[in-house]
Amino acid sequence: MQVYTAPKLNKVKVTSDFWKRYRELVVKEVLPYQWKVMNDEANISIAEDPQNNGQDKNSHAVANLKIAAGEMKGHHYGFPFQDTDVYKWLEAAAYSFGYHPNPDLKKITDNLIDLIAKAQDDDGYLSTYFQIDAPERKFKRLQQSHELYTMGHYIEAGVAYYNATGNEKALDIAKRMADCIDRNFGLEEGKIPGYDGHPEIELALSRLYEVTQDKKYLDLAHYFLTQRGQDPAFFEKQIKKDGDSVDRDLIPGMRDFPREYYLAAEPIKDQKVPHGHAVRVVYLCTGMAYVARYTGDKDLLEACDRFWNDIVKRQMYITGNIGQTTTGEAFTYDYDLPNDTDYGETCASVGMSFFARQMLNIHAKGEYADVLEKELFNGALSGMSLDGKHFFYVNPLEADPAASKGNPGKSHVLTHRADWFGCACCPANLARLIASVDQYLYTENGETILSHQFIANEAEFDDGIKISQTNHFPWSGDIHYEIQNPNKASFKFGVRIPSWSANYDLKVNGENKTLPVKDGFIYLDVDSQSLTLDLKLDMSTKIMRANNRVSHDFGKVAVQRGPVVYAAEQADNQVPLWLYQVAPDAKTDYHFDEKLLDGVGVIKVDAKREKLDSDEANLYTEAKPVETETTELTMIPYYAWANRENGQMRVWLNE
Amino acid sequence: MQVYTAPKLNKVKVTSDFWKRYRELVVKEVLPYQWKVMNDEANISIAEDPQNNGQDKNSHAVANLKIAAGEMKGHHYGFPFQDTDVYKWLEAAAYSFGYHPNPDLKKITDNLIDLIAKAQDDDGYLSTYFQIDAPERKFKRLQQSHELYTMGHYIEAGVAYYNATGNEKALDIAKRMADCIDRNFGLEEGKIPGYDGHPEIELALSRLYEVTQDKKYLDLAHYFLTQRGQDPAFFEKQIKKDGDSVDRDLIPGMRDFPREYYLAAEPIKDQKVPHGHAVRVVYLCTGMAYVARYTGDKDLLEACDRFWNDIVKRQMYITGNIGQTTTGEAFTYDYDLPNDTDYGETCASVGMSFFARQMLNIHAKGEYADVLEKELFNGALSGMSLDGKHFFYVNPLEADPAASKGNPGKSHVLTHRADWFGCACCPANLARLIASVDQYLYTENGETILSHQFIANEAEFDDGIKISQTNHFPWSGDIHYEIQNPNKASFKFGVRIPSWSANYDLKVNGENKTLPVKDGFIYLDVDSQSLTLDLKLDMSTKIMRANNRVSHDFGKVAVQRGPVVYAAEQADNQVPLWLYQVAPDAKTDYHFDEKLLDGVGVIKVDAKREKLDSDEANLYTEAKPVETETTELTMIPYYAWANRENGQMRVWLNE
Repeated sequence: MQVYTAPKLNKVKVTSDFWKRYRELVVKEVLPYQWKVMNDEANISIAEDPQNNGQDKNSHAVANLKIAAGEMKGHHYGFPFQDTDVYKWLEAAAYSFGYHPNPDLKKITDNLIDLIAKAQDDDGYLSTYFQIDAPERKFKRLQQSHELYTMGHYIEAGVAYYNATGNEKALDIAKRMADCIDRNFGLEEGKIPGYDGHPEIELALSRLYEVTQDKKYLDLAHYFLTQRGQDPAFFEKQIKKDGDSVDRDLIPGMRDFPREYYLAAEPIKDQKVPHGHAVRVVYLCTGMAYVARYTGDKDLLEACDRFWNDIVKRQMYITGNIGQTTTGEAFTYDYDLPNDTDYGETCASVGMSFFARQMLNIHAKGEYADVLEKELFNGALSGMSLDGKHFFYVNPLEADPAASKGNPGKSHVLTHRADWFGCACCPANLARLIASVDQYLYTENGETILSHQFIANEAEFDDGIKISQTNHFPWSGDIHYEIQNPNKASFKFGVRIPSWSANYDLKVNGENKTLPVKDGFIYLDVDSQSLTLDLKLDMSTKIMRANNRVSHDFGKVAVQRGPVVYAAEQADNQVPLWLYQVAPDAKTDYHFDEKLLDGVGVIKVDAKREKLDSDEANLYTEAKPVETETTELTMIPYYAWANRENGQMRVWLNE
Repeated sequence: MQVYTAPKLNKVKVTSDFWKRYRELVVKEVLPYQWKVMNDEANISIAEDPQNNGQDKNSHAVANLKIAAGEMKGHHYGFPFQDTDVYKWLEAAAYSFGYHPNPDLKKITDNLIDLIAKAQDDDGYLSTYFQIDAPERKFKRLQQSHELYTMGHYIEAGVAYYNATGNEKALDIAKRMADCIDRNFGLEEGKIPGYDGHPEIELALSRLYEVTQDKKYLDLAHYFLTQRGQDPAFFEKQIKKDGDSVDRDLIPGMRDFPREYYLAAEPIKDQKVPHGHAVRVVYLCTGMAYVARYTGDKDLLEACDRFWNDIVKRQMYITGNIGQTTTGEAFTYDYDLPNDTDYGETCASVGMSFFARQMLNIHAKGEYADVLEKELFNGALSGMSLDGKHFFYVNPLEADPAASKGNPGKSHVLTHRADWFGCACCPANLARLIASVDQYLYTENGETILSHQFIANEAEFDDGIKISQTNHFPWSGDIHYEIQNPNKASFKFGVRIPSWSANYDLKVNGENKTLPVKDGFIYLDVDSQSLTLDLKLDMSTKIMRANNRVSHDFGKVAVQRGPVVYAAEQADNQVPLWLYQVAPDAKTDYHFDEKLLDGVGVIKVDAKREKLDSDEANLYTEAKPVETETTELTMIPYYAWANRENGQMRVWLNE
């Protein structure tokens, strides 16, 4: 297969106003806030749902490491995978150094590496729950233990930290972990012929392979992917051996999930559509894409293609959110996309971004970058408030505080972002995505440089090639590229034409040019010393519909402009919002409001609105022509909802 | 308050073809089938959901009584309230004797009374779970024990059996139970200042009072109603005393429900709207209406009115089903009426019928009989298949086998009726309603006789008055009354004009007559020796809408003819059903098909239908005019759905 790579680290500088704001927010608010929380120094309240697990105001994540390192006394607190909050935070911090050097923060992270090294067992093992409270149960209940998941997250962080700072200790911890896992897992006599209940180690080992070029790590990742599901009863057998009593479960209720939840019901190559926990699916897919690229394993690549196709064509919300049910935070079935009970976990959108990025390293296809863009501007980004201190775990497409409070089937749908969660997987996951967004903008393969995203940047490539992209995206679709090619190198420059832009205009050095779109890209042959490219994307507001196999969206429309999906919020409109009706050809009006929500494009949509029936009227009456008024609906970008007063929100509007 | 009573037992003979079929089905199929099941002699499979509680193919309900009576050895099996299956069945059998004398069955029921008497403790106590397996815990965990609920169901059965057969033993068991409860409960020193987690005893004691005229029973019922919620922590305190461990819970998970679930959060008179378990609510309301009528307690009457108003105006499905969520089988909040995740328990509709009937004994208002009729022809009746051997616990208004299988939030929604349930409360509850429907047709108060339902019948009243009603309702709205009044008694005859019949024609002795409608009734002064009355109700097909405060029905219509609500089923139409769109003024065509579903009125509705999008099409595209074809939708009565192949069904159609 043809293989692409991202530019080297720190060769892409994000200059986009939109993303600079978010990336600085990560440095100034998100990282300090999360560090405080993980050190139990923030005065927070933990959301009751989802996945609270009875936790109070404490995270205890750093304390667990200190106890494991012998610096504190006490018991482990929180989920068995509590350590990962720290590792994801560390990874985000590592990325931030690339665009915002920060000696104070670096002192903290260097010390943190020392603490982690101290917490690590001599044999490389590190999972504080087991080290502190259950050393005899290491690797014995992999369905629930998250040990490889936890170490995988450290390995990702260690690799990122080493790449960012050159800290050898950070990488060494990762290698020792991977070596420990390699000694314990595999089909050889005396090893555990299993894998973790939560995929993650596969992608982490691939990243370790990338930096070390030690094939052992790639082989181990490959083993985990192919061994998965070979013995569908593996987890149950382990549980039986470890002591079957429910009291010995590490996470209450987890054993009741079916094998599909863990992607362990059959080998991956036999799985037709993704089932189960959405985050597990996309982490697994990311690992598969990595390993397929490096090993050429066709079964894995086919599984990636198959899963991608099903998710994107049949199980993804228009915002990019995935996972339709709170039960197991899981996929349900094709075209089942309820808007008011969906899960759409922030982590799943972050993981989908990882998956998309890896697929871009395999195929030069615009659809991967389309989905990546959808996540970046919608489903993933909505996980964080504009102040960087409040987070969504669940991202609904339709919210009503009365429903979340009054109907238990919607109690998982928060209508305002929480300070923190018992299972705090999402906040730092989103932070590391934002802090590393520079790594998602280009791929190259020696002959071709592909520009995937319209996130303004300045990038350097081999042969002295420099590409700068300027724009006011996502509010404007005017994209300006300047290419400097001092050595007159000959290469193809591919620019993605997004699926939402049916039409576009292109000027090369000021001259109109028409180029064919191939798999979502236009390609320009470059061999001159410099070149400018002016791309005008179609930024007209689009009224969207869903495939009519989706019952929940039938007779409904959504509003999108560029990649940004819009939402109607109570703060701007009269409730109940369902009384607004928008025609498929409704007139729309767009303007940028720099004062609103830190600057957002606002769309007014012509609508009609039924008069609200009386509270004392009969519940059911003969259908008669109803009184409607002509009005307009004000819509804001979905990612920016729930930053004002608590209220109703909906993406899909009645037609 | 003005008080009405039903005619004396066996003075009303149901002649309606529609109801005779159901009532004979109860005798020939339902009762024998259920008796077999309860004796573990039927080869059944028990539905996994809802409320299976891990039960297999056995009911064990009769065996539990035999063990308690010392006729068998063994442990109790099933829910703590398993006995009630037997009692409700016994009550249904008792009613059936009134229209279908059955010596073979009577032998069984007489023996059953003997068995129950033998199982009863010397002090009157009877709840086999506690007698067999936990005698030391009697009355000690009332939140979950269902002891008074269980005995209440026997008391109802015993009263019915005594009334039907004169069997004194049957009544004696009931009195001894009530005396036992009276000795144990109350505010006096040494008694338990509590009440049952599940209301039922209140209405049962009222019925015992009716037959015995012993005021002690009425006072005890009144005590339970007014004491409820006085100490909101009563149940928790009892649990603490009985041994707090979850292992000691009688029904796993039940302690997690909030106090509102048990209607125990505050005194009933302070509760503004009904919350919690729907069956508990309507059983409580029925008890309140009984006691309010007999005691004149205004607080109770006001609570009845308040709860009635909220349920009927804001929390009832168009089919009469109530209880919007599977979590706690409960009410949610006003105007929250999701059609695909609703619960709509059959028992709740049966209980709502009880409540309506008791309200008719207080107020001469047509709305109570309207709701009763709605339940009888829709929400309650749909609980049983046409063969009398399959049952719905949950009655959805929108069903899709793919959703029930694929989305855990809908796993409680069966799309075909089950053989039986672990918690088998519904089948016999519906049987006793059908078998006693003759008691729901009239009320009288000495001066007035009110005819509530258009269920053809021949009825006898005091003074030799005879009223016969003939019709082919619900298929025809031509209602013919003949009144014989040999003694020329002077009385008012009130006939309900249903809310669904805005227009009607009336002929008295063949002459057109116009009468004012007062609270849903027209009143005719009768003093002649005979009189005929021909009422022509408006049986035009109505396309209905919901109050637009109901988000789930916005932009949707339903079809109703007379009291019968219609449903579109996969067996008659193309799936997916959501692609059909019906205009509020769509043309409809009605015909009676005597061969279909044991004879039903069928409605064809003009509709348009979108072409199904391709499975490979993009999930989201720009809204464009879509291709629709003109077609028609075939609809059958809601109660008759799911009697053919398994498939999609919906009551609310896209507009």
